[in-house]
This record gives sequence, structure tokens and C-alpha cells, in this order.
Amino acid sequence: MSEVEKYIKSIPDFPQPGIIFRDVTSVTEDPEGMKLAIDEMDKLLEGVDYDVIAGAESRGFIFGAPLAYKNGKGLVLVRKKGKLPRETVEMSYDLEYGQATIEIHKDSIKPGEKVVLVDDLIATGGTIEAAAKLIESLGGIVVKMVFLIELTDLKGRERLSKYDVASVVQFEGE
Amino acid sequence: MSEVEKYIKSIPDFPQPGIIFRDVTSVTEDPEGMKLAIDEMDKLLEGVDYDVIAGAESRGFIFGAPLAYKNGKGLVLVRKKGKLPRETVEMSYDLEYGQATIEIHKDSIKPGEKVVLVDDLIATGGTIEAAAKLIESLGGIVVKMVFLIELTDLKGRERLSKYDVASVVQFEGE
Repeated sequence: MSEVEKYIKSIPDFPQPGIIFRDVTSVTEDPEGMKLAIDEMDKLLEGVDYDVIAGAESRGFIFGAPLAYKNGKGLVLVRKKGKLPRETVEMSYDLEYGQATIEIHKDSIKPGEKVVLVDDLIATGGTIEAAAKLIESLGGIVVKMVFLIELTDLKGRERLSKYDVASVVQFEGE
Repeated sequence: MSEVEKYIKSIPDFPQPGIIFRDVTSVTEDPEGMKLAIDEMDKLLEGVDYDVIAGAESRGFIFGAPLAYKNGKGLVLVRKKGKLPRETVEMSYDLEYGQATIEIHKDSIKPGEKVVLVDDLIATGGTIEAAAKLIESLGGIVVKMVFLIELTDLKGRERLSKYDVASVVQFEGE
């Protein structure tokens, strides 16, 4: 297990009773935690041939932006509906209660571009699966998905079995 | 004027008629734009003595995170109310219509800590002023505010005259 684990605070019953929230702000607030998190996510990208990083709003930006900068790539933003100013494509997906819709700019991915998707955490994988479908709808190829934290019991990796999924820290149990 | 300017797309009438939206996603999506933006914001930090970077949700994260990583600092998140899992302090401020409330974790800033505030854009300065007050309420000292874009007609710099404000690209007119 990575050293990063010790910087992750676990908050019981947030945002609702029965959920243990794995807090990445306690990682980013610490200079050593921030450095370790980015460096270890970056290691998961070694040998991967890709053109661009896509990050999911908003904690995905925190990890996607330094990885993009460090590797001389651009950062494509996957945002909640209504936040992006130019022409977008959108995808809705189911949450536990209700639905959410995410968007990316139509011109942000070119056909054949190899994309790495980055987020802070993978739980059931619903958001990142929708993001991958959006990228694919524009002709992009999702070559890797990189997360700081994986909640293994929620089986996001099974849902995303057609993708190459990697994470730095794994937790069992919600 | 910085080279970064050529990567900024201007979108008329977004999010409402009469507003020209200065789009930073067209900067981050381009590898060279992303690199230039971070490197030029970083130049504004040369010689500044500081302990931590604070970024405002959510575009502030995109620029604050690489700057924190590059300089071996932590990144404190200034978020909209309800997103942070631990004990927070909050501040409300006026928008053109209505109010907004932002929060930071109570333990994220220690008394006497020197903080650099980072955001993508300064318009009237309302959000960043509220963020600065939050940091000060915890005993932090805002030693610098760094923006990629400044809309000079909206006079954020006057509102924030007690702070050291710096920006990479300036636009006149909304």
C-alpha cells in the first residue's frame, strides 16, 4: 500500500449515515501528501502512450492538472451540465437517487486521440463510465483510467472491465 | 501581454446576454497553453515567501494544483458550501443576484501561515475577497493573489487594494 494512505482522513457518516468518506483534501493540504499523490499517480502512467488527460469536476481537476502539466499534455475538463461555454456533448447517468448529466466541449477531443481519464476516487464507476462514453462519442480512445483512491467493494473495476483501470490506494468497505 | 492570450477563447453572451466569457478551457486543453499558463503564473510567485496555496472551486483548482505541486506546497481547497467533509468555517458574499457561500476546513490554515490565493480569473473580486476573509479568520496571512486573467474594467484590483494582486493576461471591457 502506498505511503499516501496515511494522509487520507476517513470521515464516518458523510455525506450521509453509513458512508465512510475518504477525504483527499487532507492529502492535498499537506505538501508531502500532494507530492506523493501526484508522483504515484504519475507512475501509473509510465509507458502509457496518450495524447491528453481528461479530469472530472471538480476533484479530478486537482490531480489531472498537475499530471497534465508535468507530462506536457493538455487537460480536458469533464464538467457538470451548464458550466462549459462552447458547444458540448452531454451524457446522463444514474445516481443512487436520480440522475446527473456531464458535458465536454465537442471540439476538445479529436477522432483517434488517446485519452487518460483522471479522478480522485472510484466507487461504483458511474461518473467515469459516462465520461468515457462521452470521449468515445467524439472518436477518442480511453487508454487508461487513473484514480488516487479505489473503494474495491463497490466494484467499479468490474463495471469498467473493458478499460485499463489503476489506483494508488485501495480501501475495502464503503 | 503574455503569449497565453492567444489560447483564450472569447465567447459572446455567455452565461448571459452582454457578457463576453473568457474561456480558460481552451488554454488548458492545449499542451502549450497549459504549460505557458502555469509557468507564467509561477513567475508571478518568484521571490514570494509563502507556506501554502489556496484555490477557489473549481477552476482555481486547475491552476492552484500544478503550482502547489511544482513548488512543493500544499493546496487548500476553497469550496462551495456543503462539499467539504470536516469542520469548516464559511463566508457569504453578494452576487449580482443573490448570495453565495464558500467554506474552508477549519484546520487547513494555521495561525501565521502565509497563503497565496489562486484563481483562473478576477472580475469584481467578490469570491476571492470572501476567500481571503475566511483565511484571515483562521489567522492566515494572504501574501499574494494570482490570476490567469484579469477583467480590468470590473475593478477587482481596487476592491482588493489591501492585497498584492497579480495577473498574467488583462482584458478591458467585460
